[in-house]
Amino acid sequence: MENKEIFKGKIFTLEQIDVTIHNKEYRRDIIRHPGGVGVLLIVDDKVLLVKQMRHAIDQETLEIPAGKLEYGEDPMTAGLRELNEEAGYECKRLKPIIHFVSTPGFCDEVIWLYEAIEPYVTKHKLAMDEDEEITKVWIDLKEIQQMLQNNQIIDGKTIIALQYALLERRDVK
Amino acid sequence: MENKEIFKGKIFTLEQIDVTIHNKEYRRDIIRHPGGVGVLLIVDDKVLLVKQMRHAIDQETLEIPAGKLEYGEDPMTAGLRELNEEAGYECKRLKPIIHFVSTPGFCDEVIWLYEAIEPYVTKHKLAMDEDEEITKVWIDLKEIQQMLQNNQIIDGKTIIALQYALLERRDVK
Repeated sequence: MENKEIFKGKIFTLEQIDVTIHNKEYRRDIIRHPGGVGVLLIVDDKVLLVKQMRHAIDQETLEIPAGKLEYGEDPMTAGLRELNEEAGYECKRLKPIIHFVSTPGFCDEVIWLYEAIEPYVTKHKLAMDEDEEITKVWIDLKEIQQMLQNNQIIDGKTIIALQYALLERRDVK
Repeated sequence: MENKEIFKGKIFTLEQIDVTIHNKEYRRDIIRHPGGVGVLLIVDDKVLLVKQMRHAIDQETLEIPAGKLEYGEDPMTAGLRELNEEAGYECKRLKPIIHFVSTPGFCDEVIWLYEAIEPYVTKHKLAMDEDEEITKVWIDLKEIQQMLQNNQIIDGKTIIALQYALLERRDVK
């Protein structure tokens, strides 16, 4: 299997690899990505989502606080940073929810999801990157199922985190 | 906003776009993808997953039957095709579960999820693409929650479809 780098950008790298399937060779275009992290923050049965412009889809989305990993960075460290930068919160610990591949057909991005346990407002707010533009929105957990059904939340990692929250709190309806 | 095509492959296109944030210009690398479809198939409280090699992550995954859209193709048509090709099933209708963006930070891929309603084994099985290699696995819904907790299922769209199934069938525990 020979890898050939086609493009190297700030966020991802594009490679071509040769794979053998049923004794035949195929070329595949692959995106190499350092991975990402997302944090579920629930305070008083309200979930924090951030509204932001996503230029790839030319649309605003509602997402859990999240960000890209640096290559080799510990996902939990990144999770605590994004929780501070985007939400203005710290927490006693991050509980792992799940990690998953966003779109394994052509990309190796792994996203690590955590829940913020015993969260509290930080006294040491970190600055966001200057090219980030977000608005914080608190949404009652009771409204989440309806918002999912209405497809008002369209970000994959956010859907996974919210479905997890609903499954964990089956009493909330 | 000026778009510049950097690479055009079989599955996706890489573009650079210029975006303005807080009155400053930034260049963003964007993947354009035709989108995908996935189908939740449950028969007698067992979910059909397909085991397949994902070369982007060099790992086997368990996923719901799924595939890429042709540009402009109706997602439901594609869903019925994948249900036939990968599962060997047809159904009375496909019920929309949700559609979502897999990784909106850099990619415009939308994945459409459906549930197969009143499924039955097809008498007219379509052939799979010659570069596909899958094995069918039926898994009891009761085992799914444990498998998610153990992170045995790592594909994003599959996690969303399975959590949906668990939320819909709160009696199954």
